[in-house]
Amino acid sequence: MQLIGMLDSPYVRRIAVTLLTAGVKFEHRPISLFRHIDAFRALSPLLKAPSLIVDDGTVLVESSVILDYLGTLSRELKALTPSASANPLKSARLTGVALTVCEKAVQIHYERVLRTPDQQNPDWRARIDAQLTEGLEALNRETPDGGWVAGGSVGAADIMIACAFGFTQVALADLVAPARYPRLTALYERAEALPAFRAAPPIDGVTAPIG
Amino acid sequence: MQLIGMLDSPYVRRIAVTLLTAGVKFEHRPISLFRHIDAFRALSPLLKAPSLIVDDGTVLVESSVILDYLGTLSRELKALTPSASANPLKSARLTGVALTVCEKAVQIHYERVLRTPDQQNPDWRARIDAQLTEGLEALNRETPDGGWVAGGSVGAADIMIACAFGFTQVALADLVAPARYPRLTALYERAEALPAFRAAPPIDGVTAPIG
Repeated sequence: MQLIGMLDSPYVRRIAVTLLTAGVKFEHRPISLFRHIDAFRALSPLLKAPSLIVDDGTVLVESSVILDYLGTLSRELKALTPSASANPLKSARLTGVALTVCEKAVQIHYERVLRTPDQQNPDWRARIDAQLTEGLEALNRETPDGGWVAGGSVGAADIMIACAFGFTQVALADLVAPARYPRLTALYERAEALPAFRAAPPIDGVTAPIG
Repeated sequence: MQLIGMLDSPYVRRIAVTLLTAGVKFEHRPISLFRHIDAFRALSPLLKAPSLIVDDGTVLVESSVILDYLGTLSRELKALTPSASANPLKSARLTGVALTVCEKAVQIHYERVLRTPDQQNPDWRARIDAQLTEGLEALNRETPDGGWVAGGSVGAADIMIACAFGFTQVALADLVAPARYPRLTALYERAEALPAFRAAPPIDGVTAPIG
């Protein structure tokens, strides 16, 4: 398997960390959608990161769909889907909220990078800012105070939460203060200390849009 | 269960059609994120459509995560996840491409509705237009010529493809000509003839952003 995309995308990192956590071998090709767009297009013409090229050459996109498919490959990967966790409802709840945090963070990042100030829409910006804050507050409120979302070892929701919060710290560090979200920050730090997260670090500093 | 959101969102419709196909009872509350935002916020403060409120009051968001969770509730719902289909790889491939078509269609719709012409970014617009076309061409090329993606009866990929293509026909009818995608259009029409699709029609004409 080849995983195409840079680890500054929280969706690419979600898949990389999942594969590393399950101990599945894969080749990571950190090809940028902006700096190396022709190389990316040659492998995945939809220009979506992550793209996962499986062994028969099929190209999969959309991280939640990729994760669902990976669950068919081994018991270790299946255990890293929300529905196979020890608490499917809580895992689904927090995975969905973390994906919303990612979506809003990417939208805010795009708004700042793709638009001059007079091209920005202040009503839209206020709306996605409020959604981002609502999502971060929900994660902070509902994250366990120690340990992992579904109990036991790190799971699907924890991986998504940590990748989402990590993305805010790389791309929106001026807007998202960790001190405002202490339980969320503590879970993020527990996750970042794991070997799978340390083996898939995001790039320090995002200058171009993601995904 | 309560499904919150308007059926003009392809993601809301995906969940509605899945529940109807599996014969699962639910209450649909067609609350708009734009015209009834206070009513929506009272139920789901993240302001994400679809929001699925399950029986203990937990609010789930993100359609792929909701679908994964629904698979834990019954065999009929499980069968409507890509990984439980008769062809998990092909189902994952086409579900992911269809989700990309939705994402790009929503981005183009936002670009047109949220921005005045001088606020639009032509490079960004060209990029997402090309991704939309690439996705539609892939769906047209890889869709079966008759029947359903994984064989047998309608499945996860078919539902997502039909909801995505239907959204282009409501929101971007001036940009996406069905004649250019004959196999995709035929699958869409087969799907729309099913009782579950007929019971969950999108609103005719989208005037405000989705999701």
